[in-house]
Amino acid sequence: MNRIAFTLQVRPDMLDEYRRHHEAVWPEMLDALRRTGWHRYSLFLRGDGLLLGYFETPGTFQQALDGMENEEVNERWQALMAPYFEGEGKAADTQMIELDEVFHLD
Amino acid sequence: MNRIAFTLQVRPDMLDEYRRHHEAVWPEMLDALRRTGWHRYSLFLRGDGLLLGYFETPGTFQQALDGMENEEVNERWQALMAPYFEGEGKAADTQMIELDEVFHLD
Repeated sequence: MNRIAFTLQVRPDMLDEYRRHHEAVWPEMLDALRRTGWHRYSLFLRGDGLLLGYFETPGTFQQALDGMENEEVNERWQALMAPYFEGEGKAADTQMIELDEVFHLD
Repeated sequence: MNRIAFTLQVRPDMLDEYRRHHEAVWPEMLDALRRTGWHRYSLFLRGDGLLLGYFETPGTFQQALDGMENEEVNERWQALMAPYFEGEGKAADTQMIELDEVFHLD
């Protein structure tokens, strides 16, 4: 498994609503994530809207993104989420910045 | 296990040296981390120096920090690392910002 981390920027005026959506992610969306290799997937939010994603996957970050790209439910979910992110309404999954792992201890 | 994420800011002019230190973390430091409940611990670096930590621990973030506070090797490691972080030479482990987990999928 590869460990992946990425960041996104949530609009600071919309943090509460963003949180609420993530307490009730659609079951079809969860199934699609599982099916396309998003394991131990967490999203963490900092007070200023910095969003951090962490997950483990058998392939690369791009392969995991490509897998979701082919899931119809992902298109609907990303359309719902787009207004919450900085970046003029572009889909979040095209704006993620991947970080480099520089240390790991099991 | 609780999943913890935190951020720190590495000085952008010192990223390469910071990386090199983390390819060879002292074995006594790794032992102290294991002993004090830092499991699946990764550090990820963004191009601008944003550093993200992720780990899993049986207690709280503060308990894991307090555990390391009592390890003599941690004091030496933090003194070595302090110049690499923004924040006027203060120890990194006093400057970490904890993020809130807003979503998780096993």
